[in-house]
Amino acid sequence: MNDETSWWLRECLRADEDSAAQARARQDQLTKPPGSLGRLEELAVRLAGLQRSQRPSLQRVWISVFAADHGVAAEGVSAFPQAVTGEMLRNFAGGGAAIAVLARSLGASLDVVNLGTVNDPGPIKGVHRAIVAASTANFCEAAAMTPAQLRAALAAGAASVRAARDAGAQLFVGGEMGIANTTAAAALASALLDCAPARLAGAGTGLDAAGIAHKTAVIERALALHADAGSDWERLRRLGGFEIAALTGAYIACAQVGVAVLVDGFIATVAALAAQRLNPGCGPWLLYAHRSHERGHAALLDALDAQPLLDLGLRLGEASGAAVAVPLLRLACELHAGMATFAQAGVSGANGSHSDPAAARA
Amino acid sequence: MNDETSWWLRECLRADEDSAAQARARQDQLTKPPGSLGRLEELAVRLAGLQRSQRPSLQRVWISVFAADHGVAAEGVSAFPQAVTGEMLRNFAGGGAAIAVLARSLGASLDVVNLGTVNDPGPIKGVHRAIVAASTANFCEAAAMTPAQLRAALAAGAASVRAARDAGAQLFVGGEMGIANTTAAAALASALLDCAPARLAGAGTGLDAAGIAHKTAVIERALALHADAGSDWERLRRLGGFEIAALTGAYIACAQVGVAVLVDGFIATVAALAAQRLNPGCGPWLLYAHRSHERGHAALLDALDAQPLLDLGLRLGEASGAAVAVPLLRLACELHAGMATFAQAGVSGANGSHSDPAAARA
Repeated sequence: MNDETSWWLRECLRADEDSAAQARARQDQLTKPPGSLGRLEELAVRLAGLQRSQRPSLQRVWISVFAADHGVAAEGVSAFPQAVTGEMLRNFAGGGAAIAVLARSLGASLDVVNLGTVNDPGPIKGVHRAIVAASTANFCEAAAMTPAQLRAALAAGAASVRAARDAGAQLFVGGEMGIANTTAAAALASALLDCAPARLAGAGTGLDAAGIAHKTAVIERALALHADAGSDWERLRRLGGFEIAALTGAYIACAQVGVAVLVDGFIATVAALAAQRLNPGCGPWLLYAHRSHERGHAALLDALDAQPLLDLGLRLGEASGAAVAVPLLRLACELHAGMATFAQAGVSGANGSHSDPAAARA
Repeated sequence: MNDETSWWLRECLRADEDSAAQARARQDQLTKPPGSLGRLEELAVRLAGLQRSQRPSLQRVWISVFAADHGVAAEGVSAFPQAVTGEMLRNFAGGGAAIAVLARSLGASLDVVNLGTVNDPGPIKGVHRAIVAASTANFCEAAAMTPAQLRAALAAGAASVRAARDAGAQLFVGGEMGIANTTAAAALASALLDCAPARLAGAGTGLDAAGIAHKTAVIERALALHADAGSDWERLRRLGGFEIAALTGAYIACAQVGVAVLVDGFIATVAALAAQRLNPGCGPWLLYAHRSHERGHAALLDALDAQPLLDLGLRLGEASGAAVAVPLLRLACELHAGMATFAQAGVSGANGSHSDPAAARA
């Protein structure tokens, strides 16, 4: 198999400019000062282009959470023990995890994918097993993934997108769980952006300053070991993780099949960066939900020229920040579709330009 | 009637510290790194204190929109004709206005109150008439309101809160509509904060730079005329508007009966400032939904030490920004009530402190 001609390089769909233009024209006729709904207007117009519909809708939201373990956890870079990754799979399926509560509240489909955990909980109702390996390798010592493992992880993401599309999903939300995965994400982002790890390594689940300094040093060792990686695919393979690669594959697949994406926090944004490096055409499909509290997320968002919707100090992952932003997108669509125009409502426009009541009844 | 001993000076209720402390303790046991839900944790804890319940709930949301006209519109300070205030009342009741769409989507009660419009639409199903007068006076020439008018406007706000409480509302959202009311709000805020109008006067519904300069000059004239106002009540009377005063009265009444408030944008925040000046005990009951695009809102929020939840460039009013933030508060409550604890889920805590499975079953 030649990775350079693989599925993730296939062309992405494009937004429909006509639908977006029609939506923009409609926004300017709704009973409000033009532009007064700010970002909500932009969202409605952008979703119109992505859904190829003047009146986009987000009733059917799909959430995939990918869980996997990381060899670099052996370096002591997390405040939590590695067993938590596997334990949390049960909590996702059991309904007690944050993303499970949010999915229920939003009426969203929740797809939980076990890509490989050291503390394997075995089959669990509601958890899809797509085991790549029990863990990545410790990237301070070797490449995190073999080429076959990376392909499998990317494909797992694409498989979730196929299921989402088959279910009629109008929005794909991806999340992750994996002890030590902020270390992998920061390492990968450092390599992709050629950026000092100290700018991107943060507290994760709760490191103190000494812990962050240690984490930074671990990433620096890894970057030195893998300095000869010759492509972004290779950087993803050597420094990423199964769940990060699954998100990368999912984002590209969404752009290829035409499903809009809402990107979660720091780790998901690193996956979005990797996706755009592997296939730049996916960029227009990626909306950014929030600026997380994790150090480095702001720099990443800047690098992607992304303006997230929320800034609430969230740093949980699991797609939780993106899920919290879903109602904003839904309300943007409902305002767009449900508001009356000046003509329909018989309301005068700006500068005294009265609407024509006859036109309103037409 | 002696205004200094009136109902709005009566003591406000206090948040219940025990409920808030129990909610904080619960947050720290939920299956997530402590603090990782950021502002959503703070919201749940704060609402617990205000609702006197460890597990606050926001199923029943009440939205009151107060509409009124302003004499200062005669100075040419708005991009829209004054007729729009009355026309929009029909649009609120008819379901085509932004807040009507949002209320429907949120399953919230929508209370529309006509406090007096120059272009009076007459009785409309779904609009409560509490006419104070057709308009305030032009505060460049006289006091905006008589003392009796201010009392009536404050009382109209309190009346809506009584209806909200009788309906079991767990959150009160107040909105406003009134051509030229950003001018009144900026004038009042300038007087209350002793701040230059140029810092607080903005584009409103869509003024250009010359329009804003004119608006600022109009406010400066008004401030000079009313420089001898000797109290904040008097500043509200001379520079406010019926809908601004109704919001002021509503916020105080909410704090007196124990219903949490979500404050909307610029004009609502000026009313919140006025409410805190009239009765400082209402402050803890006021949550701030968003930072609007209107110039001056950021300065106002700073003066109130308020950290709004959203920053989406909204500048519509009608309570629309607050309505858009309601799902964040609801999700904060649902995460708080619905997530599993580490013990319940059998998930290991930080630093390897394993939970006790026996305790989980207890």
